[in-house]
Amino acid sequence: MTYCAATMLNAGIVFASDSRTNAGIDNVSTFKKMKVYEVPGERVIVTLCSGNLAVTQATLNHLDQVIRRNDGSPNLMNCNSMFEVAHLIGVALREIRQHDAPYLTQNNVDSSASFIVGGQIAGEQQRLFMVYSEGNFIEAMTDTPYFQIGEVKYGKPILDRVINADTSMDDATKCVLVSFDSTMRSNLSVGMPIDLLCYERDSLRVTKKRRFDERDDYMRSLRQQWSEGLRKAFSQLSTFDWHE
Amino acid sequence: MTYCAATMLNAGIVFASDSRTNAGIDNVSTFKKMKVYEVPGERVIVTLCSGNLAVTQATLNHLDQVIRRNDGSPNLMNCNSMFEVAHLIGVALREIRQHDAPYLTQNNVDSSASFIVGGQIAGEQQRLFMVYSEGNFIEAMTDTPYFQIGEVKYGKPILDRVINADTSMDDATKCVLVSFDSTMRSNLSVGMPIDLLCYERDSLRVTKKRRFDERDDYMRSLRQQWSEGLRKAFSQLSTFDWHE
Repeated sequence: MTYCAATMLNAGIVFASDSRTNAGIDNVSTFKKMKVYEVPGERVIVTLCSGNLAVTQATLNHLDQVIRRNDGSPNLMNCNSMFEVAHLIGVALREIRQHDAPYLTQNNVDSSASFIVGGQIAGEQQRLFMVYSEGNFIEAMTDTPYFQIGEVKYGKPILDRVINADTSMDDATKCVLVSFDSTMRSNLSVGMPIDLLCYERDSLRVTKKRRFDERDDYMRSLRQQWSEGLRKAFSQLSTFDWHE
Repeated sequence: MTYCAATMLNAGIVFASDSRTNAGIDNVSTFKKMKVYEVPGERVIVTLCSGNLAVTQATLNHLDQVIRRNDGSPNLMNCNSMFEVAHLIGVALREIRQHDAPYLTQNNVDSSASFIVGGQIAGEQQRLFMVYSEGNFIEAMTDTPYFQIGEVKYGKPILDRVINADTSMDDATKCVLVSFDSTMRSNLSVGMPIDLLCYERDSLRVTKKRRFDERDDYMRSLRQQWSEGLRKAFSQLSTFDWHE
């Protein structure tokens, strides 16, 4: 399994991904699920992926090949809008799945995969998309300022409570990391290290990118503070009085 | 969808169920998912159910018919152990599904259903079981002192943090209600009223049973206190310092 989340704020976009992959519970590995395409001053594109790892890797490799070929066909480094970026990912994902799915289906292997992609291209606002397994996609709007893929449920309540368009980058960063903490506590198939990238609106460059592993001091203290804060909040709830 | 949870504590068992059912998003109704079989001083059996409503209702009706027939065949009111109760529910569920599934499958309707069943029969300890859709079942042990069925993920993190065998009935009650609150915030298909039953170990009778609806004062204040407590806990988390 996987957990990735991205929040779209007025101040920028916070991206985060775990890095555990598993093919069965006895085949667990670490793969980075965040990929960055950057031309400082011109474009920042961040992809997060979930689902069949061979499919997501093949999709990204296919997109990279088109960039390297540089024959004028539209690619992630020459297109003019994030909408086109989402479209290119969707098309590549469809091609890969169309090609591979029949072989996977024969062995009951799921070929589904999905992407979160966001960032900014000069001349456009920052934008955030979720590309479904079928290759179609949706864009985050003010009403729904975040996307999640993978094991999304455990970490959703805190996002629902905290994130809105006006949330600061610092608060969104904390919130996303707490969301990962809740998910990792309840689902073994989501695991550290966590890759975090905070894109500041209109900066058109990556300045805040960080990996948090098991031994990371901030992550450990965040887990502990949150755990204590929850315990305290819980202990302060009034008890139900059966005699009332 | 549905959400039901039960926690097995040294002090007793806390049962709770929501009451929303939906066949598609435009066909939402209220059905009680908790059923109690009680002979004061002799047995208390509580069932919670999730899944296809026609299947769970038919299963419980079948079990009731055997009780009413009273022809000496084993039933929920004459059997001597909770293990046998879980077995009887599993057998009834298998029969109903075997009978109905072919008709449901024709229209791609899911016939799966599951039960949590717990309580105590004189001469035995209190016990708690989860009966799977296939009719097999497991029993709660000290290491895993709670079961959930239905929409289980949103409400799991708080149970994981709070519930262990030594948790008091009052704390478990609060925790289960908070777990329902988190679930209802993130999934529209789980809804009030919530049925709550707190069985006190060795009491062999039901003394604490209560329904909480939308307008319930305690539930409203619990939601508000929890929301404020979370916000406070969140605001007290240290911010990540990118310059460190």
